[in-house]
Amino acid sequence: MTDIPGYSLLGGVNTPSDLRNLRSEDLPHLAVELRRFLIETLGRIGGHFAANLGTVELTLALHRCLNTPDDRIVWDVGHQAYPHKIITGRRAGLETIRKLGGLAPFNHRAESEYDAFGVGHSSTSISAAAGMAAAFRVQQRKRRAVAVIGDGGMTGGMAFEALNHAGHAGLDMLVVYNDNDMSISENVGGLRDHSARLVQKLGLVAPHLVRLPQDGEEAVETHLDNPGALFRTFGFTYHGPVDGHDLDALTQILDAIKDARGPQLLHVITTKGKGFEPAEADPIKYHGVTQFDPVTGAFPAKKAAGAPTYTQVFGDWLCEAAERDPRVVAITPAMREGSGLVDYARRFPQRYYDVGIAEQHAVTFAAGLACEGLKPVCAIYSTFLQRGYDQLIHDVAIQNLPVLFAIDRGGLVGADGATHHGAFDLSYLRCIPNLVVMAPSDENECRRMFATGMALNGPSAVRYPRGNGLGLAIEPEYKPLPIGRGRIVRDARGRRRPRVALLAFGCMVQPALSAADILDAVVADMRFVKPIDAELVLELANENDLLVTLEDNARMGGAGSAVNEVLVAQHHKVQVLNLGLPDAFIEHGTREELLTQCGLDVAGILRSVQKRLRARDLDINESARKA
Amino acid sequence: MTDIPGYSLLGGVNTPSDLRNLRSEDLPHLAVELRRFLIETLGRIGGHFAANLGTVELTLALHRCLNTPDDRIVWDVGHQAYPHKIITGRRAGLETIRKLGGLAPFNHRAESEYDAFGVGHSSTSISAAAGMAAAFRVQQRKRRAVAVIGDGGMTGGMAFEALNHAGHAGLDMLVVYNDNDMSISENVGGLRDHSARLVQKLGLVAPHLVRLPQDGEEAVETHLDNPGALFRTFGFTYHGPVDGHDLDALTQILDAIKDARGPQLLHVITTKGKGFEPAEADPIKYHGVTQFDPVTGAFPAKKAAGAPTYTQVFGDWLCEAAERDPRVVAITPAMREGSGLVDYARRFPQRYYDVGIAEQHAVTFAAGLACEGLKPVCAIYSTFLQRGYDQLIHDVAIQNLPVLFAIDRGGLVGADGATHHGAFDLSYLRCIPNLVVMAPSDENECRRMFATGMALNGPSAVRYPRGNGLGLAIEPEYKPLPIGRGRIVRDARGRRRPRVALLAFGCMVQPALSAADILDAVVADMRFVKPIDAELVLELANENDLLVTLEDNARMGGAGSAVNEVLVAQHHKVQVLNLGLPDAFIEHGTREELLTQCGLDVAGILRSVQKRLRARDLDINESARKA
Repeated sequence: MTDIPGYSLLGGVNTPSDLRNLRSEDLPHLAVELRRFLIETLGRIGGHFAANLGTVELTLALHRCLNTPDDRIVWDVGHQAYPHKIITGRRAGLETIRKLGGLAPFNHRAESEYDAFGVGHSSTSISAAAGMAAAFRVQQRKRRAVAVIGDGGMTGGMAFEALNHAGHAGLDMLVVYNDNDMSISENVGGLRDHSARLVQKLGLVAPHLVRLPQDGEEAVETHLDNPGALFRTFGFTYHGPVDGHDLDALTQILDAIKDARGPQLLHVITTKGKGFEPAEADPIKYHGVTQFDPVTGAFPAKKAAGAPTYTQVFGDWLCEAAERDPRVVAITPAMREGSGLVDYARRFPQRYYDVGIAEQHAVTFAAGLACEGLKPVCAIYSTFLQRGYDQLIHDVAIQNLPVLFAIDRGGLVGADGATHHGAFDLSYLRCIPNLVVMAPSDENECRRMFATGMALNGPSAVRYPRGNGLGLAIEPEYKPLPIGRGRIVRDARGRRRPRVALLAFGCMVQPALSAADILDAVVADMRFVKPIDAELVLELANENDLLVTLEDNARMGGAGSAVNEVLVAQHHKVQVLNLGLPDAFIEHGTREELLTQCGLDVAGILRSVQKRLRARDLDINESARKA
Repeated sequence: MTDIPGYSLLGGVNTPSDLRNLRSEDLPHLAVELRRFLIETLGRIGGHFAANLGTVELTLALHRCLNTPDDRIVWDVGHQAYPHKIITGRRAGLETIRKLGGLAPFNHRAESEYDAFGVGHSSTSISAAAGMAAAFRVQQRKRRAVAVIGDGGMTGGMAFEALNHAGHAGLDMLVVYNDNDMSISENVGGLRDHSARLVQKLGLVAPHLVRLPQDGEEAVETHLDNPGALFRTFGFTYHGPVDGHDLDALTQILDAIKDARGPQLLHVITTKGKGFEPAEADPIKYHGVTQFDPVTGAFPAKKAAGAPTYTQVFGDWLCEAAERDPRVVAITPAMREGSGLVDYARRFPQRYYDVGIAEQHAVTFAAGLACEGLKPVCAIYSTFLQRGYDQLIHDVAIQNLPVLFAIDRGGLVGADGATHHGAFDLSYLRCIPNLVVMAPSDENECRRMFATGMALNGPSAVRYPRGNGLGLAIEPEYKPLPIGRGRIVRDARGRRRPRVALLAFGCMVQPALSAADILDAVVADMRFVKPIDAELVLELANENDLLVTLEDNARMGGAGSAVNEVLVAQHHKVQVLNLGLPDAFIEHGTREELLTQCGLDVAGILRSVQKRLRARDLDINESARKA
């Protein structure tokens, strides 16, 4: 019985039990409907797309053969888990995915008992499933633990750590290796090269997906007759490769191995974008989409170009820097598109390294480059730099090596939600000695800061938000900034008491300026989170009754906390209000909605300042009356 | 010409050039002298030992065949690099290693041009050497980049990230895989199991070093006829295995492959402790030593047992907890001995997981266990938790899973130096929502805090220092503490102005008490870094003229910063002095020397407080005169 017109089978699948009650011969038709539902829905609302077309059959086969939710499926990353959401009771909700209050962008334990583990960052699934398998062993429970990980996720070191441990411990678990030869961009790595040759040899997928080593890359000896050697070395029993779009093959092999003892790995070959020709042809373009025509795949005509994003500002600056200085090299952990490196990679292929989803390596590789006198720029999202934190301290900062970190997606990122916000970087970076930490308030500031970091003989970080700059005319020349100096960007006029100064970091300068018009406040663009401009802080403290620090980072230990430390050290008695992100994980929504939720839009800032003035300014008001 | 009696060859080797000028037939004798020098020196002064005996021939062969320092050798971890230090001009200095102002414990770029990359944490060497190889490619320089990594280091995920990238990029580099089947403890992992079988089959080393899977571990299918399959899969050309104590074999193979194009891996089999029978028989005991008899290996009679270390307190508590509660499981990333888990591992083998040097996996594996209702305790050094930072945020804290982190080596660790101090944890943990962070002031407090974390339905961390507790009688019963509440441990008596309160965290409570006797100050044991006890802070602020925060963590963003935030939020005008670690990397020395250097001993605390009182207490003194 269907509850949506045109979907005679899918409409009746509200839980995996419904799926398990279907006849085998109905499954291919269900796959067709599921794929059509994805194309129609995502064409309308946007979201992660191509990866989900690749996992349609795999999802059906897994839930068909396993006893979910008692058996656990851990989807790596989760951007390929829309089919899983659809057949586990969340079909209607898919309309709301990634929207404020709607379905979570990835798997989320609070959302469904079928979401065994929350994800977002890649390469965690084998570890999590191994933990579950170990728990079942301790508890002597007969449940299955399955990780589904892509070849992109498999480039992350923790996936190997998990394989190595699970293989040794002999855990009863299954790793489904979903090999589509793609990360968000093309996947890279020796393992990929090996696998691609294997796939080509076996004729499993269209040859255009197979990228053999390019000019300058060495041909390598491989062992195509022994495709599972790597996994077997770790102690896994290897099965496959099998065609991940062949439901019969998938259900047969899963039924055959799902109760095997010891660690099992099933190598499944899929095509990202499967079943939608435009996405198969260009899976990078269709990885995440806004809207598109569900028949042709055409995207709506672009609106008149807005201001460039900070990502673009970075990419453009990097090309200019590389033109000027042959020592510039760029490193990305599998984020060429997201980090604005497409042009750079095309123009400077000899000085471009996509290292795979491998943040730890990315940072230390950059340190190695810096040791030899090059000028590495490590482009990395704030949330993913958490993966390279030890390397930043241990390999870069202790050795005081000149690596420039271009930290994109600082602050709230919007629809990707709690796992992806860059909410902690100012706190976790500020305690690291030798590191200079900057946050730009506009495009030209951003360029100046890149130039500043590049000119330093030590490590630096420029941390900028997702989204557009102000649309300023780009200044061709940009000089390094004086280290640790902020600037006043708005002077107050009347200066009635209480006098308020807003000390804003990065993208908070703009809302601070708007709020200042109403408060008649001074606004400082602090520029440097570290070293903080103590002189400016004290000057503002001397001339004002209330200092308000503004940042889109956790209040705890963040930039405002640096201002507090300066004032405490000088025992300045000025009032201070620290505004920033609350001590809670923030879910998904648009960046604007979330900033409003956190009180960091103009209205929220005004509300907080006025509340503080009302509640705590008795002595100020007295002074004001006397003045 | 020798400059030390009894060392006719070693005395003449002051640089690798000297080594390269020797006759080949002299090398084995040089190895004998080098080994004897290590045994005599380390028997006298202590230090990392067994690993260095294993790399004597490898070190000589590498410097003989390579053109150091132009060619780069990156030693992973660096605890096996004493032979390297000795033959690169630091023989005389070895007496001072790990001591204040003496040679660094590991490789250190500032110490020698032969130290191509500073190390300390494991698994970084392939990434760093890959960066250097990439730089040489960009620069078109004919230099070689070599990483020397043990099988322990190879369990770290970033080593695989690096292999995968370097193999794909086709970099001209050499990885020497120094396989001695040991981490600090026995190495673990599927790769180790595979390698051990291979070594046994080839009869390369004494069989007692080969540990086959134990009861409960599954037998796994392996490919012993294809030992390099794993490395070949990544795109490396595999050579070996060769006997790492055979100088002829080593120099021959190195000469043969050192100019090969593309990524090369040489598998070398060595014996940890080689040439000193007691160390060969028990390499764990001789991994790091104080002093020993250079003939018998006997350690000096132990002094009367002092107070137990916090490490022991943890190990004992964990055994008790596991006895009481079958849900308790413990995880260590290759630190069984260092984390106090030897007894636990013996008594509860089914609930003990040594996951290898794999901090990322350790944390997410614990998250997986917690999802299934177990009570995982993740034992990890502060400095190594930096490796699992993203996993702590993304897999544990966002999902609010009850994982208890037993964080050993918080604060200054002493002789291991800058790479190993736990100087940042309070800063990088404090910004994470959902996490409860505690720091104990004595053994019983430590036990109470473990119990507190264990009773929570969310993540928690107990952070304790290296070294001994106070020697208190252990209280058998221990109840959970009220969350976020500190306690007054010393009331002041006379209360002359200025009134001082010391707000101490963890191990700083003891020096605070001593200082308070002189200052007649109140002392609070704050217990919780997060949530901070705001009520207690405000109470102390109301009753005192100066609050002094005390922590052995970076001042920036640390526990003192949390106190500041409370006072700022309430606009309290009390004076505050934040004492903690300075914004600089601190080198090696004894823990006491370093605490003194940082002004965190009793004298230093008094000095800082008195200086602040003199400099900034005019208004207090005025109040005092009036009082």
